[in-house]
Amino acid sequence: MKNFSFCNPTQIEFGDGKEKEIGQHLHHNGIKKVLLTYGSERIKKDGLFDTVVDSLKAHTIEYVELGGIVSNPLLSKVYEGVDAAKAHKVDAILSVGGGSVLDSSKAIAAGALYDGDVWDFFLGKSFITKALPIFDIITLAATGSEMNTGAVITNDKTHQKYFIQAQALYPKVSIINPKLQSSVTKEYLVYSASDVIAHCIEGYFTATTHPTLMSKQIEAIITTVMETTEKLIANPNDYTARAEFAWAATCALNGFTYVGTAGVSYPNHMIEHALSAICNVPHGAGLSIVMPAWMKWYYKNNEAQFKRFAKAIFGLDSAVEGIEALTTWFDKIGTPTKFSHFNIEEKTLPAIIDNATNNAIYFGMGEVYTKETITEILKQAL
Amino acid sequence: MKNFSFCNPTQIEFGDGKEKEIGQHLHHNGIKKVLLTYGSERIKKDGLFDTVVDSLKAHTIEYVELGGIVSNPLLSKVYEGVDAAKAHKVDAILSVGGGSVLDSSKAIAAGALYDGDVWDFFLGKSFITKALPIFDIITLAATGSEMNTGAVITNDKTHQKYFIQAQALYPKVSIINPKLQSSVTKEYLVYSASDVIAHCIEGYFTATTHPTLMSKQIEAIITTVMETTEKLIANPNDYTARAEFAWAATCALNGFTYVGTAGVSYPNHMIEHALSAICNVPHGAGLSIVMPAWMKWYYKNNEAQFKRFAKAIFGLDSAVEGIEALTTWFDKIGTPTKFSHFNIEEKTLPAIIDNATNNAIYFGMGEVYTKETITEILKQAL
Repeated sequence: MKNFSFCNPTQIEFGDGKEKEIGQHLHHNGIKKVLLTYGSERIKKDGLFDTVVDSLKAHTIEYVELGGIVSNPLLSKVYEGVDAAKAHKVDAILSVGGGSVLDSSKAIAAGALYDGDVWDFFLGKSFITKALPIFDIITLAATGSEMNTGAVITNDKTHQKYFIQAQALYPKVSIINPKLQSSVTKEYLVYSASDVIAHCIEGYFTATTHPTLMSKQIEAIITTVMETTEKLIANPNDYTARAEFAWAATCALNGFTYVGTAGVSYPNHMIEHALSAICNVPHGAGLSIVMPAWMKWYYKNNEAQFKRFAKAIFGLDSAVEGIEALTTWFDKIGTPTKFSHFNIEEKTLPAIIDNATNNAIYFGMGEVYTKETITEILKQAL
Repeated sequence: MKNFSFCNPTQIEFGDGKEKEIGQHLHHNGIKKVLLTYGSERIKKDGLFDTVVDSLKAHTIEYVELGGIVSNPLLSKVYEGVDAAKAHKVDAILSVGGGSVLDSSKAIAAGALYDGDVWDFFLGKSFITKALPIFDIITLAATGSEMNTGAVITNDKTHQKYFIQAQALYPKVSIINPKLQSSVTKEYLVYSASDVIAHCIEGYFTATTHPTLMSKQIEAIITTVMETTEKLIANPNDYTARAEFAWAATCALNGFTYVGTAGVSYPNHMIEHALSAICNVPHGAGLSIVMPAWMKWYYKNNEAQFKRFAKAIFGLDSAVEGIEALTTWFDKIGTPTKFSHFNIEEKTLPAIIDNATNNAIYFGMGEVYTKETITEILKQAL
């Protein structure tokens, strides 16, 4: 195990009805006025918006709305949010939505306390040392953003899908009510499963040291996600499965599984960010296309861990069998494993590859992930 | 999964050499003067004390010493610490030692900001709402106290071994250097393994709901502890095994494995506290005596989970086989499973049973754990 520092101070409020307490948590933290961020107008139809506003009013907390945040969230909207946060002098961001809303909220929280262009943080031109406190009600279990320091935003002008990370971006309080997540479509459920599994395997396979407990914890999360995904496909109203899926999603990227590891990189995310930046496919769907291709290309670099994966997850004996079994499982639940699912043709590949090659440099992986190697990987998904 | 609130804000600094940074962490938190607590004078011989003091001096942090804290730590020493903390107006407690030193430090931290008798907190007469910030260098992996809110103290006058728990008792920064833990004797290593396994199984078996991920995470910790204990018996200088053992010990009781469960109780600890309060046996050794006895007595209340344990840990098919396999493993590593190990005779049992019966009421388990049932359990360990 490598030396590490770890501190995850996010307060999790998990369970049915917890969203009603949001005003109380804000009040307890001395918040008087929030920027209330969300995605589509659906939350106004299904009652969640009213529940939140009632709770804010009960604690005399003012709010300014910022709706219309989209999947693969955009920098232009972040700018809008930063301007609103500054103009209205809010003292916190309250995110009500999935990972896209929360990631946008994190970027806004950092940008609101910064005099320059918030995109500077994404380019590494400036570092986030402070941010407005972030509170959230997470309505989709996938990104893990509710208990970590990261956020991913797409620059709509340059098609760069880049990320920020900073201790100041840990949400102060995250509310996870599995019931609020049960209206997700079957498609987004299986894309989410793919996203969570991707968060698990990036470190599991790329780390140069593998503490046993971390490997076991990651395997526990993967098998839990697989079991609960199948239960939820069969019965979307299975509360226990929904809750276990939600918590597994949070645990997959809250830092605990990666302590003591070394050399972790995110090649699948690096390539997928290019795919969704160019083709605007859902992130989780892009990941299930990239993962089998990457695994086939990569496994000989760490065959022992791929064999461990095959045994622990599928009871199989070889690295290749494990990769095939995961691909088969993705196919079975209905998350895509080929470009053809989204009618992405070979002629689109160069644009994706160019974008991914830039990402590789941005991710600090440019030496291994060249235009040639990325081409080699992506051709496996044709 | 049950609704839950969870927030573990302890900053973990893990790895070789991390103790040299203690002054920096204190300074970063605005600390000018600490009560430096420790156990035996051994830390002055092995250089750790000097390392700590050098780091304090480098950051102009004053210190007042409180040494002589013993295993199964005593209330009389806590009183001494509270008096010293008040008299010298320290602004933090710095614990350098194992779980006993840290638990005493937590009680001192709470007592230092309280006008009444610190024992009030243990009796539930008063509740801990504030405490001096706690920093620690943990030199024995066992109790998990370095990343949780609990502390156990024995009242030397009444022989009550009671506990406190409060959010204010999370250590601010905990330093875990596995190398500092490698001088532990083989006896205390195996007692520690027993302690960690006890922390795992209490909730695993007593909870009335068993979220799958939690069961899997607990199984991951138990098997990691078993594997690394055997490696450390064979080679005490195996750094990787020492590090994995240390982190597993922390994870066993940092709250993560218990979220979403319901009805968790600590019967093994409840009974063992009586055993160590009366006979002053090491806590982990007492637990390995109590656990097999309790498991044999209890398993029919939750046979499915005992069967799961047998399969997941030992690859066996029945509850009873699982209990036997754990007992055999305790015997193999050399942590006791019978009273005879410490020459505790049947005539001593009534005093232990009386104490345990009082504990049961204190733990809120008096209805199930009567004098009769505790007798029935403990007779299995004769």
